[in-house]
Amino acid sequence: MKGPLIIVNFKAYENVCGAQGLALAATCEKVGKETGITIVACPQMVDLALTVTHVTSPVWAQGLNSVSPGGRTGHTTIEALVGAGAKGTLINHSENREMLFDIDAIVKSCKKNNIASCVCTNNIDVSCSAAMLGPDFVAIEPPELIGGDISVTTADPKIVSATVKRVKEINKNVEVLCGAGVKNAQDVKAALELGAKGVLLASGVVKAKDPKTVLRDLASAM
Amino acid sequence: MKGPLIIVNFKAYENVCGAQGLALAATCEKVGKETGITIVACPQMVDLALTVTHVTSPVWAQGLNSVSPGGRTGHTTIEALVGAGAKGTLINHSENREMLFDIDAIVKSCKKNNIASCVCTNNIDVSCSAAMLGPDFVAIEPPELIGGDISVTTADPKIVSATVKRVKEINKNVEVLCGAGVKNAQDVKAALELGAKGVLLASGVVKAKDPKTVLRDLASAM
Amino acid sequence: MKGPLIIVNFKAYENVCGAQGLALAATCEKVGKETGITIVACPQMVDLALTVTHVTSPVWAQGLNSVSPGGRTGHTTIEALVGAGAKGTLINHSENREMLFDIDAIVKSCKKNNIASCVCTNNIDVSCSAAMLGPDFVAIEPPELIGGDISVTTADPKIVSATVKRVKEINKNVEVLCGAGVKNAQDVKAALELGAKGVLLASGVVKAKDPKTVLRDLASAM
Amino acid sequence: MKGPLIIVNFKAYENVCGAQGLALAATCEKVGKETGITIVACPQMVDLALTVTHVTSPVWAQGLNSVSPGGRTGHTTIEALVGAGAKGTLINHSENREMLFDIDAIVKSCKKNNIASCVCTNNIDVSCSAAMLGPDFVAIEPPELIGGDISVTTADPKIVSATVKRVKEINKNVEVLCGAGVKNAQDVKAALELGAKGVLLASGVVKAKDPKTVLRDLASAM
Repeated sequence: MKGPLIIVNFKAYENVCGAQGLALAATCEKVGKETGITIVACPQMVDLALTVTHVTSPVWAQGLNSVSPGGRTGHTTIEALVGAGAKGTLINHSENREMLFDIDAIVKSCKKNNIASCVCTNNIDVSCSAAMLGPDFVAIEPPELIGGDISVTTADPKIVSATVKRVKEINKNVEVLCGAGVKNAQDVKAALELGAKGVLLASGVVKAKDPKTVLRDLASAM
Repeated sequence: MKGPLIIVNFKAYENVCGAQGLALAATCEKVGKETGITIVACPQMVDLALTVTHVTSPVWAQGLNSVSPGGRTGHTTIEALVGAGAKGTLINHSENREMLFDIDAIVKSCKKNNIASCVCTNNIDVSCSAAMLGPDFVAIEPPELIGGDISVTTADPKIVSATVKRVKEINKNVEVLCGAGVKNAQDVKAALELGAKGVLLASGVVKAKDPKTVLRDLASAM
Repeated sequence: MKGPLIIVNFKAYENVCGAQGLALAATCEKVGKETGITIVACPQMVDLALTVTHVTSPVWAQGLNSVSPGGRTGHTTIEALVGAGAKGTLINHSENREMLFDIDAIVKSCKKNNIASCVCTNNIDVSCSAAMLGPDFVAIEPPELIGGDISVTTADPKIVSATVKRVKEINKNVEVLCGAGVKNAQDVKAALELGAKGVLLASGVVKAKDPKTVLRDLASAM
Repeated sequence: MKGPLIIVNFKAYENVCGAQGLALAATCEKVGKETGITIVACPQMVDLALTVTHVTSPVWAQGLNSVSPGGRTGHTTIEALVGAGAKGTLINHSENREMLFDIDAIVKSCKKNNIASCVCTNNIDVSCSAAMLGPDFVAIEPPELIGGDISVTTADPKIVSATVKRVKEINKNVEVLCGAGVKNAQDVKAALELGAKGVLLASGVVKAKDPKTVLRDLASAM
């Protein structure tokens, strides 16, 4: 995962449960192959292992629990992600916040298990705090813009550029992604110009009438 | 699911991630067919949809979140369970406790979506409280016996019989299961004699050297 | 606490921190003495012990944690409530939901420590479920009406009368309170006519320009 | 709070509820005056405001919730701490972990309200991550040593010195405290020599037969 990156978070949207989720993952795979851009699918948790068997492109988890294997009903361990074939995971999404010490433990377990780690953050300070823990990615997403119509790159471009600058000072191996309101090629172009390595989006693709066209448009800017 | 029932909870045990989990589900299916007893597999959450495609026997979830579909990263909705092909779900397992109002909402959403609901409980009062909400099953499991060597049917038979008696007074459509320490045919026999409709177990099968033999032994008592 | 009851929940409103909270508690005490009606103050948690030293009328907690004493930083035990001089506590308020098994444990620890217990509920089924656990009070508060302008007794009178009917069938020792939108004498009168033993309110008193006048009005209906 | 500091966390120990808690706070005040060392008492949450009225020495909270004032039953806001007269607060104690974004928000609200902030951490990486957020103090406490008989300064002196070194590189205004197993003058002396500004302890004082003697011993090393 060295080049620019598009991560599609399926969240818990109703129109990507079951077969419809597999179809969207296949679209991510197809557009990724066409364009040479890495497009990551984050399907719903219960669909993770099945999605991995359906596509050759990378599939990530939407999150996991910071617990060791054992008697822990309903919890998802890093070992379960590995078993399911996930290549990475979101951590600390604004809709699924984690405790600081769990973020630390999860990032370490991801490294140990060769799973890409992407810690989502809500502002510059939290991005720096997260960068200190050495994840592969920090994804800055101002919560008030998530799911909205205005891209973070338009509404608050400085939050992206400042996050890139400060994160790189802390640890140059940590790449910065940005999200919230990202919907088209122009938003992606702006994100890359601001120093981001890629974008994290959800509704812009998942709720689009034609996700394939949207993904092609996004990838065209990379 | 009218006859007696064995529910195998895979929990987050390391030896049932990925392909090993599918193998255990296949064992549940095989012994179920041989014996005519319903054996439910509750695989790890990320393996749920894939497991459903591998076996014809019922697959249940270990739990779900009481949230509606939408922007809810990392959460599992009832719609996701339906999409994945789950036939039922555990709710409020002692390792995954839920809030009272969420148990109520989940039981209602299970009914609406034709998903079997099994609320786990820790004592007689909580069993009665859960029964009031009208789930398909209440599974009584004294937490101190979970994962241990002594079956609840030996350690505290009265908690099972009293739960059956009181739950049936509240709602005769709610079936009682019992769990915690259940390991062999004798434990299952005792459970049924005490009025339970079946058993819920985890380590006794999942961590057994030969799960097939254990499941055959358990089913033989039914 | 045998007669009708008014419980004033200070919540986390900014205008009842510190000295202002003590003043409101004193108003509760004063109007209670004038009218002979029991008016309970639920001050902010950090003000609990201090409030008890300022008034002779009953002071309740807004909640507590279901943990035993010991190394549990930031948690409030039933022993801490007793030490602070609380006479009762809210449990499971819609803004502070509890797990079912914790509600059971808290109700039992309240009984053992002679602390009045009031489990808040959101609908009739949850009220029945809570009543099964034998608290002193069940307070029905439809969440969508909390903090609003229309009293539950106007918006949904049947939810109150049906809760009273069903709770009394389960355990005649459990009294029903109602809340959400309760603001004046008419609302209190309606609540009592529907079978409630009293009312639980917050903004109607706490955010009133003149809480004393509001409390006198409320008490006049009892 | 410029000089060395002893913070006594009362936790939820049963022997410091109510009047006994006030007595221990008075002992902290007395020994502080005798020795000229700042001894901070962190009483149980419900005793906070009352404790402030009983002693002139600084009283801190054991924690607070990252919520704004309003309809939030059972939650403790920064405004409530200010109203109660707290001078500081623990944040993210290992027994009361917080989400990363809440730690950030709480530290900022502490600064704005002139309340000292002390973020507890479990390892060096998390200490650095916390330091990035600019609290007044970071208190490193390896969880496995909390409540035990061996001081962190003996069991793992490098974790203290390395935390001091790295935290100071990140933000020289952040002071480092250490805790876990700290019990006597020798432990305090070692802590200061390792670069800590003070110590955070609980059972060593709270459960001591004679807290006054223990506190005098601790203070004597400063």
